Amino acid sequence: MKVSIGVSNRHVHLTDSDLCILFGENFKLNNIKNLNQPKQFVSDSFVTLKTEKSVINNVRVVGPTRSYTQIEISKTDAFKLGLNPPVRESGDIKGSSPITIVGPAGSLKLNEGCIIADRHIHITPHQKELYGLSNYDKVNVILPGIKGGMISNVSLKVSEESFFELHLDLDDANAHLVKNGDIATIIEGGDL
Amino acid sequence: MKVSIGVSNRHVHLTDSDLCILFGENFKLNNIKNLNQPKQFVSDSFVTLKTEKSVINNVRVVGPTRSYTQIEISKTDAFKLGLNPPVRESGDIKGSSPITIVGPAGSLKLNEGCIIADRHIHITPHQKELYGLSNYDKVNVILPGIKGGMISNVSLKVSEESFFELHLDLDDANAHLVKNGDIATIIEGGDL
Repeated sequence: MKVSIGVSNRHVHLTDSDLCILFGENFKLNNIKNLNQPKQFVSDSFVTLKTEKSVINNVRVVGPTRSYTQIEISKTDAFKLGLNPPVRESGDIKGSSPITIVGPAGSLKLNEGCIIADRHIHITPHQKELYGLSNYDKVNVILPGIKGGMISNVSLKVSEESFFELHLDLDDANAHLVKNGDIATIIEGGDL
Repeated sequence: MKVSIGVSNRHVHLTDSDLCILFGENFKLNNIKNLNQPKQFVSDSFVTLKTEKSVINNVRVVGPTRSYTQIEISKTDAFKLGLNPPVRESGDIKGSSPITIVGPAGSLKLNEGCIIADRHIHITPHQKELYGLSNYDKVNVILPGIKGGMISNVSLKVSEESFFELHLDLDDANAHLVKNGDIATIIEGGDL
């Protein structure tokens, strides 16, 4: 089963109220480009991530706002910031790393919210059945190329509204020399 | 077959004459720590890598000097520098990326020399036979952990004087959340 790859650089998701704290009252995110996942979009709003050790500037806010504020970084970013975030599914932020977000209108000192996103595939319930993956929550995926290989523990993220796509963070993409739109191959079975 | 992992951050190897250009006449590299590979050592000398797009400071020189000058970076570094280096074995620098190295005494504008090091395992001829790998130039290797998987095209770098070890660059290590001294498993067969 072939699936196209979408690479996610570091980014943040914000609640309505956190958006206001960082960007000001009544601020709305601009949709400058639709992402492949339905309703998700790239905004032209950026924040700074800050820890005692370091900062990372120009971190993009992905819209729309959500019911939770979440910061997704790579392990490379984590070393720079002096953090050790857990590998989590989106939304599962309990006990994740503390971090400060700085925006043009204010800042948020969060006790948790920073994660390394797990490798995942967006898939509809119908596709999951159609592709013979009904019995799997996780799969292995073969990545092509000279630094390719097989990544394990790739979650199947099932939603009626989803675009079939493998999401990797920038460390995974750079390590394997793959980029947006490259094609990977799903292999049944969740772990090696 | 188990093998321990050694992670290489970006570094440079220099010829005697390039060492003199960068650090001055009669300069000698200090051995501040032996590496696992025989005779190889960490020095306390650093250079800056420079391209039209960007610079990376504090890049370590690994000793001793060699018969070629070579700069080993990750794909993450390559994006920062605006380069597209080939994936190569050490010493195979023909047609690799141009880069400028700046030292305290001078600089070198190289037409080639910058590579992304291939994934490789240092192994003796005797170990290669003993471990049943005689027929393989490349193997697959399973990396452990939640972001583990199997990396392919891992070269067997055979030398009488070598310490049995898998060398990965920092992108591979960060993507898979592995670190120095972690244990990987060699699987026969070179590609998926």
